[in-house]
Amino acid sequence: MPKKMVYFFGGGKAEGKAQMKETLGGKGANLAEMTNMGIPVPPGLTISADACDAFYTADKKWPSGLGKQVDHHLAKLETLMGARFGAPDNPLLVSVRSGAAASMPGMMDTVLNLGLTDNVVDGIIKRTGNARFAYDSYRRFIDMFGDVVMGCHHDSFEKALGNLKKKVGAGQDTDLCAHDLEMLVESYKAIYQKQIGAPFPQDPRRQLVAAINAVFNSWNSVRAIKYRELNDIRGLKGTAVNVQAMVFGNMGDDCGTGVCFTRNPSTGSKELYGEFLMNAQGEDVVAGIRTPEPLIKLKNLFPELYKQLIDTMLQLENHYRDMQDIEFTIQQGRLYILQTRNGKRTATAAIKIACDMVEENLIAPKEAVARINPSQLDQLLHPSFKTGAARHVIARGLPASPGAAVGQVVFTAPDAEHWESLGHKVILCRIETSPEDIGGMAAAVGILTQRGGMTSHAAVVARGMGRCCVAGASNLEINYKKKSMKAGDKILKEGDWISMDGSTGEVMLGQVEMVEPKLSGEFARLMIWADQIRTIHVRTNADTPEDAIRARNFGAEGIGLCRTEHMFFEGERIWQVRQMILYAEDFKILKEKIAACGDPRELGKLQKAFKGPKTKFEGALKKLLPYQRKDFEGIFKAMAGLPVTIRLLDPPLHEFLPQDDISQEEMARRLHVLPAKVKAMVAELHEFNPMLGHRGCRLSVTYPEIARMQARAIIEAAINVARKNRAEKILPEIMIPLVGNVKELIFVKAHVIDEINAVFQEQQTEIDYLIGTMIEVPRAALTADEIAEEADFFSFGTNDLTQMGMGFSRDDAGKFIAEYTRLGIYEKDPFQSLDLKGIGKLVKMGIDLGRSTRKGLKVGICGEHGGDPESIRFCHQVGMDYVSCSPFRLPIARLAAAQASLL
Amino acid sequence: MPKKMVYFFGGGKAEGKAQMKETLGGKGANLAEMTNMGIPVPPGLTISADACDAFYTADKKWPSGLGKQVDHHLAKLETLMGARFGAPDNPLLVSVRSGAAASMPGMMDTVLNLGLTDNVVDGIIKRTGNARFAYDSYRRFIDMFGDVVMGCHHDSFEKALGNLKKKVGAGQDTDLCAHDLEMLVESYKAIYQKQIGAPFPQDPRRQLVAAINAVFNSWNSVRAIKYRELNDIRGLKGTAVNVQAMVFGNMGDDCGTGVCFTRNPSTGSKELYGEFLMNAQGEDVVAGIRTPEPLIKLKNLFPELYKQLIDTMLQLENHYRDMQDIEFTIQQGRLYILQTRNGKRTATAAIKIACDMVEENLIAPKEAVARINPSQLDQLLHPSFKTGAARHVIARGLPASPGAAVGQVVFTAPDAEHWESLGHKVILCRIETSPEDIGGMAAAVGILTQRGGMTSHAAVVARGMGRCCVAGASNLEINYKKKSMKAGDKILKEGDWISMDGSTGEVMLGQVEMVEPKLSGEFARLMIWADQIRTIHVRTNADTPEDAIRARNFGAEGIGLCRTEHMFFEGERIWQVRQMILYAEDFKILKEKIAACGDPRELGKLQKAFKGPKTKFEGALKKLLPYQRKDFEGIFKAMAGLPVTIRLLDPPLHEFLPQDDISQEEMARRLHVLPAKVKAMVAELHEFNPMLGHRGCRLSVTYPEIARMQARAIIEAAINVARKNRAEKILPEIMIPLVGNVKELIFVKAHVIDEINAVFQEQQTEIDYLIGTMIEVPRAALTADEIAEEADFFSFGTNDLTQMGMGFSRDDAGKFIAEYTRLGIYEKDPFQSLDLKGIGKLVKMGIDLGRSTRKGLKVGICGEHGGDPESIRFCHQVGMDYVSCSPFRLPIARLAAAQASLL
Repeated sequence: MPKKMVYFFGGGKAEGKAQMKETLGGKGANLAEMTNMGIPVPPGLTISADACDAFYTADKKWPSGLGKQVDHHLAKLETLMGARFGAPDNPLLVSVRSGAAASMPGMMDTVLNLGLTDNVVDGIIKRTGNARFAYDSYRRFIDMFGDVVMGCHHDSFEKALGNLKKKVGAGQDTDLCAHDLEMLVESYKAIYQKQIGAPFPQDPRRQLVAAINAVFNSWNSVRAIKYRELNDIRGLKGTAVNVQAMVFGNMGDDCGTGVCFTRNPSTGSKELYGEFLMNAQGEDVVAGIRTPEPLIKLKNLFPELYKQLIDTMLQLENHYRDMQDIEFTIQQGRLYILQTRNGKRTATAAIKIACDMVEENLIAPKEAVARINPSQLDQLLHPSFKTGAARHVIARGLPASPGAAVGQVVFTAPDAEHWESLGHKVILCRIETSPEDIGGMAAAVGILTQRGGMTSHAAVVARGMGRCCVAGASNLEINYKKKSMKAGDKILKEGDWISMDGSTGEVMLGQVEMVEPKLSGEFARLMIWADQIRTIHVRTNADTPEDAIRARNFGAEGIGLCRTEHMFFEGERIWQVRQMILYAEDFKILKEKIAACGDPRELGKLQKAFKGPKTKFEGALKKLLPYQRKDFEGIFKAMAGLPVTIRLLDPPLHEFLPQDDISQEEMARRLHVLPAKVKAMVAELHEFNPMLGHRGCRLSVTYPEIARMQARAIIEAAINVARKNRAEKILPEIMIPLVGNVKELIFVKAHVIDEINAVFQEQQTEIDYLIGTMIEVPRAALTADEIAEEADFFSFGTNDLTQMGMGFSRDDAGKFIAEYTRLGIYEKDPFQSLDLKGIGKLVKMGIDLGRSTRKGLKVGICGEHGGDPESIRFCHQVGMDYVSCSPFRLPIARLAAAQASLL
Repeated sequence: MPKKMVYFFGGGKAEGKAQMKETLGGKGANLAEMTNMGIPVPPGLTISADACDAFYTADKKWPSGLGKQVDHHLAKLETLMGARFGAPDNPLLVSVRSGAAASMPGMMDTVLNLGLTDNVVDGIIKRTGNARFAYDSYRRFIDMFGDVVMGCHHDSFEKALGNLKKKVGAGQDTDLCAHDLEMLVESYKAIYQKQIGAPFPQDPRRQLVAAINAVFNSWNSVRAIKYRELNDIRGLKGTAVNVQAMVFGNMGDDCGTGVCFTRNPSTGSKELYGEFLMNAQGEDVVAGIRTPEPLIKLKNLFPELYKQLIDTMLQLENHYRDMQDIEFTIQQGRLYILQTRNGKRTATAAIKIACDMVEENLIAPKEAVARINPSQLDQLLHPSFKTGAARHVIARGLPASPGAAVGQVVFTAPDAEHWESLGHKVILCRIETSPEDIGGMAAAVGILTQRGGMTSHAAVVARGMGRCCVAGASNLEINYKKKSMKAGDKILKEGDWISMDGSTGEVMLGQVEMVEPKLSGEFARLMIWADQIRTIHVRTNADTPEDAIRARNFGAEGIGLCRTEHMFFEGERIWQVRQMILYAEDFKILKEKIAACGDPRELGKLQKAFKGPKTKFEGALKKLLPYQRKDFEGIFKAMAGLPVTIRLLDPPLHEFLPQDDISQEEMARRLHVLPAKVKAMVAELHEFNPMLGHRGCRLSVTYPEIARMQARAIIEAAINVARKNRAEKILPEIMIPLVGNVKELIFVKAHVIDEINAVFQEQQTEIDYLIGTMIEVPRAALTADEIAEEADFFSFGTNDLTQMGMGFSRDDAGKFIAEYTRLGIYEKDPFQSLDLKGIGKLVKMGIDLGRSTRKGLKVGICGEHGGDPESIRFCHQVGMDYVSCSPFRLPIARLAAAQASLL
């Protein structure tokens, strides 16, 4: 425990400074700083956060020495103020305020006017002749002390105040005269006595100790803990306590109190922004009982003081080199600054202020870049609901993909496509989504699911598409049969309107008013600075030409992940895919039997049996080829000059088969087989843990023909586009997923290269290409030295690496991960922000091992984490070449990457 | 390529020796060794395996220099023999035989009598006057050369021989006279010309080159490759080729050929064992055309020669210090030894021979221990089918749990229990098994599944129980409704008899005859030696007192894994478990709401609502407590003095709920709720990837009450047993499963310790206990340094570590893992033998990190790999304290552990 626990400020100098936030809290550090700057701050003392920590360590008792230090500095304060604590003839009154290193507005406790007792009040009246002020201060103190320190009901005091106002016919509090207030003080004391069982304490030292304890205790109040959780505030020791000489805004009409910002915190404009109340104390502004006046009005009332305030605002902004949020009090025509801090602001304001300050030579571009919270940019990249619009919330889920959506509910993907084709805006509501729903998801303006987490299928696909999505709204009960859903006692039918906020997870009844996003010129400027600073490249995950174009506009420097399976669902293709699946196993088994057969008669029989499956299987692949080629052509065109990483087919085949009876029967009809064959295939392909099943390169090992078709489509497309666009290079990068053993890569790569060489032969031309692999199985990271010998690049698939490395199924873990973060077992959902200690270690090991056998190996990340600022910082630190994220997260990634470079 | 490719042996000395197997192959090395020992070996030359390797490298052409070296040594051989290759007056004939470093009997090619041509045959007749011998040798050579070297059909020659014998009325081949054989030679030559399209080659040098090439080529024949795969023979360069001067067993009645073993290879007894044929060549013995005579008969025919053979056998056995398998030929009353090698033997013989040789001071005990193949012991530990019993195989699956079983088929677990209670022997046939089937599995003599791999639920449980099991017999079609199964065109109904061999995976119709296992006294002696040598402890996986007692008899030094979930299924308990599950979530949610509630009126309501779930949930746990305590008491009693590691509840809760409608309705009836509530709970608990879901310590984090109940049961049981047995210490080790983050361990451990302290308080006594964790999530291995700070021991759960680390679901991977091992992507099924390169690295990392923060941390393994010899070697090497395996694998583990110490 450090010896010094109390720090003094006042008389033009302070023991602390702005840099001592950890110890003094933000408020205390800034009070010290302002004191040293010569700004009129009421003097006082700050009890350090370490003392709070020691208080908890000592089982909520004051650490030894604290009492003495408080007394010592209180005596100093008395001397400086020429007043004495509890002395009726010349009393010192103080405020007691919490102030941690991180801002937690309204979360912890404040007590004003401390030091008032019956005797002191009498003394003040004697000395100032202002009985109204004295009683007003006293009744405020009893209320605040009773409520905040002792746990009385604030309502009881309010009720007494209301009764009195009614009785005397007062409209405003200020209409109450001294006598009224004297009576009110008596009622308050009675209320206090009744609720606490003891009279209101008349010993100021006891009041002070109780108030300091209350502030210490408020650090671990339920709401403070919750606030820190929600705002990801960690690692602090506790709160500091500021005991400061009171100045009074309620001493008369030459008194007042106010709040001002040095710039507009909503728009960022450099303009006066603030408000004040005459003859009032700070809490009156907050309580909203009287409407405050705009700051400009002060100019007429007190021109000198107004000028002093404006000068001080400027001085503070220049000193802190950031927009300040300032509290002030006017006591009898004199200005006091009670607090300054960097002001909270909207994303728009943050960008404008940062850019303006660069213009004003106040900060350098890299400081501008460092100041913007990348996550906040999200606000600017999606439409949002109008601030203040009425919201009738009927359900809450996870904010799975940001944005706002208003639409009519539908419950199946085909319905979504149908309604959309008729010009409706629809919100697709599903218990959970599957790849079959992809068309419906694209047709919808928003996706709402009853089950699933932040990285459920719905969430991942929605973010990729930039669709608004609320996932896992578990109080919903969706009934597919009835095409309806229950939300509490509301029943919603197909076609009913709802609104949903993908940034908060709220689902609302009816149509809530929306505003379109605007990207100001400053935003673009900030991005240019970010791009100049960052050293890690930023690519996008994009599966369609439209996504690719959008991503390029958002600054993508290539595609880091193009998932080919989404292409398998569109329109007619799914039928070819299903035919392929239906005959794949027969094709394979018979092919192998023929290869192993020694008996010519048997061979003839086998070859005859082989004909059907071969025609069907290879025929389906042949029909899929031109579709795939066309997809790739569009993407290569959109990304000409930039690398495009295409992942070969990844999901297990059963994902392409229909799961319900009706659809299975339809499939049988279309493919001219018995329904039993379809059902048998669905059963055959069923897996207990599909996540760990027959997928990724394992499919290519079983059916190299699929990988060959895809390789051919990629290379043919690249050649076609290259022929038309000679100026820019086409840079295909073929990515083999789910490799866990270098031999898998060798096997699949050999087939892919063989097919590519055949294409080169046919087309009489060659182009450059790379073949790399995803590192998403822990074993791949563990044996990355071997794998790197065969891979032109690594792309870390951190979604799967997290699933396998931590043993969490992202489709199931939602249920307990919330509890895990609540209990602090994991600080964040590891599917949102990379678990650096475990999975990060695996990633780092993979990179280091990989580069030990292949110097300068190109390494990137293509999991969801590629769009998370904290994870991007890690990617930069471990030396990745690029991150890849969904198009809508690109600006966030660019900024986060720049900030990582600045660390 | 090494310069020297040909090695000479003959004239009492050789260029090679026994240690040069890698280069000369087993046969060549032993021929050289025997030559140096002065044993009468026909001289010759050995072409090295490196030459074979170079042959393949050079695209099946002789490497440069090989021709010259062969010629050079052939000339030496001619000089030594005083005969010339191809010279009619004094011809040298040779045999050409393959011989790799590993024995591959019958897999590769042999050509005898090479060097015979029309002229040479004439010359031999002139010189010896033995026309019969000359033609007999020639016809044999044409047949063998035609068949083996040129690819003629051996059948055609056999047919010609048969026709001739019929024509001349000969019963035996030896009945044919010289003239007959001369005619036969002509027919053979005609057959050769017809099939090959060229006359039989008359140039011995060309014959020799063709024969050597044939041997080289036979190395990569389909059957040779298959044999190496099946017998796990890897890393060899190729086969050596032995070209050896012919000696003739078919020159007349003073000639013959035979095979002998220095001990009985079936029983191990030290007795004469061998047989011979007069006037015959080696292939006649193999072909079985004439019945060979027992060796003892040679004593009367050639007493001198017999004595020489017996002396040579003894000399060879003493020299090689192991039982020898010897081939000899007698030419005109003179003995030649053609081959010696360590003889193959049964497990029984292996043990007896090793023990006898220790008795005889021929080898030390540690050599005896080193010589037994641990996997072979499996034969001795389970009943087996009588050798030679007729088998009508109707299906084939994976040999999932060894042993033999004969029983009547049933299709449900309750049926199995019912039939068994009526005294029937049943085989439980399931599409796949689940924990619900446990009772039925225990009641059955064998378990047969249509789906699942070597580590499927059925396989793992069956091995644990020592039940015979064939898993994944995919050609079966089990129909639960009809209570029947199809196997090809056979339909089997409930009650039909089948037999199954868990060591081969065969399923047979009817009742195949069986023999019971016998453990000889030598077996026990060998185990004692093994125990003296090994440094790593051997524990068992056992869930019941019966298992524990059996395991202790098999040498277990404690329990490494006691799974408590199996205890949850028996009898009445399952209903308490189900009640607990049914009310768990309500209990939890309401408990949390009450804790967070501020409003006293709301609190009252919540507490009222809480009453029901609380009573039901806690009531169920209270009823489970005595059951669990009793289980643990039985186990502690059986294992007194030895450590017992008990794993807290591991599987996801849905495994305890019934999945079909009828059982769900029964559950609803028994627990007095609506069927809808049961169905809703089943749906609620459904997981997409249960392997990665809400299980292990994650359950304890959500419901610490379950962990507390189990901890209480364990400690109360330990105290109760300790009170009754004061001589031996009771050593409970509580194991918390599926930890991935040290904070999970801290959380659960705190609850467990709290409960244990409460028990100590109540009982007014204390006992020692440990709390440790399983390392089975990759992240746990990666952060083992943190985890070790909180864990008294680590137990590597390599089943799950393999699943997660490699991304293989063991329930699904069976489909493609077979293909993976076939393609050589993995050498072995990683669920059977630990993947050392990947998962092994993770294990080693976990141990090293763990011991970096906790010196001397106790470490063991409790996955299936704990019974696999190769994995045990690894466990020893990385410094584990113990391995744990199923009771029936204990002797294997003890032996493998000893062998690991000897490396």
